[in-house]
Amino acid sequence: MCVPGCQEAVRAALTRRGFFRGAAAAGFAATAVAPAEAAPKPAPARFKGVVDLTHTMSPDFPTFFGVPGIELQKQFDIKKDGFNLNWWRIIEHAGTHIDAPIHFAENGETLEKIPAESLVTPLAVIDVRAAAAKNPDYQVSRQDLTDWEKKNRRLPDRCCVAMLSGWGAHVGDEAKYTGASGGTFHFPGFSGEAAEWLMKERSVLGIAVDTLSLDHGPSKDFRVHRSWLPSGRWGVENVANLDKVPSNGATLVAGAAKVKDATGGPVRLIALV
Amino acid sequence: MCVPGCQEAVRAALTRRGFFRGAAAAGFAATAVAPAEAAPKPAPARFKGVVDLTHTMSPDFPTFFGVPGIELQKQFDIKKDGFNLNWWRIIEHAGTHIDAPIHFAENGETLEKIPAESLVTPLAVIDVRAAAAKNPDYQVSRQDLTDWEKKNRRLPDRCCVAMLSGWGAHVGDEAKYTGASGGTFHFPGFSGEAAEWLMKERSVLGIAVDTLSLDHGPSKDFRVHRSWLPSGRWGVENVANLDKVPSNGATLVAGAAKVKDATGGPVRLIALV
Repeated sequence: MCVPGCQEAVRAALTRRGFFRGAAAAGFAATAVAPAEAAPKPAPARFKGVVDLTHTMSPDFPTFFGVPGIELQKQFDIKKDGFNLNWWRIIEHAGTHIDAPIHFAENGETLEKIPAESLVTPLAVIDVRAAAAKNPDYQVSRQDLTDWEKKNRRLPDRCCVAMLSGWGAHVGDEAKYTGASGGTFHFPGFSGEAAEWLMKERSVLGIAVDTLSLDHGPSKDFRVHRSWLPSGRWGVENVANLDKVPSNGATLVAGAAKVKDATGGPVRLIALV
Repeated sequence: MCVPGCQEAVRAALTRRGFFRGAAAAGFAATAVAPAEAAPKPAPARFKGVVDLTHTMSPDFPTFFGVPGIELQKQFDIKKDGFNLNWWRIIEHAGTHIDAPIHFAENGETLEKIPAESLVTPLAVIDVRAAAAKNPDYQVSRQDLTDWEKKNRRLPDRCCVAMLSGWGAHVGDEAKYTGASGGTFHFPGFSGEAAEWLMKERSVLGIAVDTLSLDHGPSKDFRVHRSWLPSGRWGVENVANLDKVPSNGATLVAGAAKVKDATGGPVRLIALV
């Protein structure tokens, strides 16, 4: 289980294993896969513009693990070979990426089992920038969701609820983006209460954050990860440009790489507005 | 340049280099990047359903290179660590993936420079299944495009033109999907004439095929790759389920991973219908 000190343990384990530094691949345990749930088609939607909610991924992008989330290796060069081609080494959970249920659930759905119908959703944006500016450990509360509904409407069925904390603007400044201090991160996330209310009281397919984690930085128990993902829902982290879409009315297309047995992976996040 | 025998050279080079078998990363040349072109917003679109045009990627998926296109390595296991996490090694040009201009152009755009506005397009599907069933080396012709326009309308501005050859159904049978015989592949693709006509006479952002390559299997000169990509347009290969979308009227969302300096990469291809 992920217990107090987990972040530090993760980092220690990663360092110990020489993660991402060329260790040879070993055998893999089979991954249990839950059957895909039949999903109704999304409600009719209309759009006339596009907003890219994806950060550009590179070895410099801040990661939860403190090591580069991607490495490109050139295999063919146009000057010599007539074309360019690289291969990548990539951490499933780095950059703008999706968490599949199996990331925190022994028998959860793997990435390829999330149906496309569940990746095209109405988007509700919860703006907590004012509170997060005062408190970098801010957690989206049940009250924030109530306030959104008062201003807009009841959260639409089969939607994605996204936290706009303003942290997307800090992504080029790793110290500010991670808020790392004495082995603890400081950035906003969802509160356990808010996530659990969304699961029980509303129809929500996914949650999204413009920070490194669904849980706020100082979390020791990863309560949101541990309740939300095992429920069969997905999460997206490191979202960009949430300040450029309306609070209500956009449609999100979560273009998740479709990889067998993956626990998550890179996603091209596009809002249709 | 890619000259006659290129396929064989590619395969030989890949084998020689032990590609994808753990060779250590070397230094990388900087990649020249063309500035992103400002793109107008797409025409208003309406949809009520979703079709997944993406194959599931796994080490078993047939590749142009004859080696696995992806490898997953488990780094954390929920039973021991409290969560599951893998890293991947992935060839940029394997599975359902996008070719960025730089794949075949010295100064072409890298993947992250293709703006989201250019990845959301009207979709025109050219059905050549009957001809391809008779001739696995079939090439989409100028006449096929004319026939589509006669039946439908002028190709819409800023569209993607996709070849439906029926090869998507063979993806589980590598011998049939690649048609490999005596060092030559046999599968359908676009003809150079058709691609060049689309570039000159119509407004087309991308082309897509339900086979391994934009060029048909026996191609020695990669004419379509060598003209289409350097023009600043993109291509998508190994598309699924093109028989499940209308010939005209769908909107394509090409959810390409947004990776700095990449020459291509995995794409979640979703049709809004």
